[in-house]
Amino acid sequence: MTNKCPLCNPENERLIWKGRLLRVIDASDDDLPGYVRVIAARHAAEMPQLSTQERAQVIRAVQICEDCMLEVMQPDKVNLASLGNMVPHVHWHIIARYRDDAFFPDSIWSARHRTMPPEKLQERRTKAQRMLERLPALLQALETP
Amino acid sequence: MTNKCPLCNPENERLIWKGRLLRVIDASDDDLPGYVRVIAARHAAEMPQLSTQERAQVIRAVQICEDCMLEVMQPDKVNLASLGNMVPHVHWHIIARYRDDAFFPDSIWSARHRTMPPEKLQERRTKAQRMLERLPALLQALETP
Repeated sequence: MTNKCPLCNPENERLIWKGRLLRVIDASDDDLPGYVRVIAARHAAEMPQLSTQERAQVIRAVQICEDCMLEVMQPDKVNLASLGNMVPHVHWHIIARYRDDAFFPDSIWSARHRTMPPEKLQERRTKAQRMLERLPALLQALETP
Repeated sequence: MTNKCPLCNPENERLIWKGRLLRVIDASDDDLPGYVRVIAARHAAEMPQLSTQERAQVIRAVQICEDCMLEVMQPDKVNLASLGNMVPHVHWHIIARYRDDAFFPDSIWSARHRTMPPEKLQERRTKAQRMLERLPALLQALETP
């Protein structure tokens, strides 16, 4: 361990898939079922600091997650973001958004608007689970040259 | 005009470059100099609804903006995001972030933390202007097969 980056030293992550150049974790929380994160294996703050291959694979992984999320969870919108202001290690958020979710139509980093009924959330969690089951096989394509 | 989408019917945009499949605009505001937006030409809510070529070109345009922003503006972080909850027409935000900006370390959609000194902002605007001058020639590469 040569640094204190929490993405280089993960604790209690819910790993979905791990490859040579990146890993994908389940980042769902109580408000947002259907939230995955693509994390570059190598510590680099910005996409251009990755190699061409690493950068392309991160983009492909985001697209695989996005496509699967849209198909399985049928959200009203998918949100994609790579911010990293607090943790400057390349990672992408892929988030299923619904008109009735806690923050819609604002970003998930904005002020909360409402609390969803538990039964609605449970229905989304079931959908999210189906997506999580499907993702590893799809992501495995990244390791095929 | 077949829809009321504000990105299909732009008003008072500060256009940086326009190609066959996308355009790039200057989205800088009083708090955030160095903020550009890549907007798909065709009305589609999600990236997978674009053609393979459109999707790839949008990604390439985001990368060109990101690379140029990092080089010319030397921000502490670049933020990339495609949300579209309010305007479901594919568009990407590419934002130069600095530790002393109004929202850092939070997202620009989060609560404001501070007001920057005008002279600091002016310095950033000068850098942003240099980036805007350089971008058209770089983006023109998208039209070369």
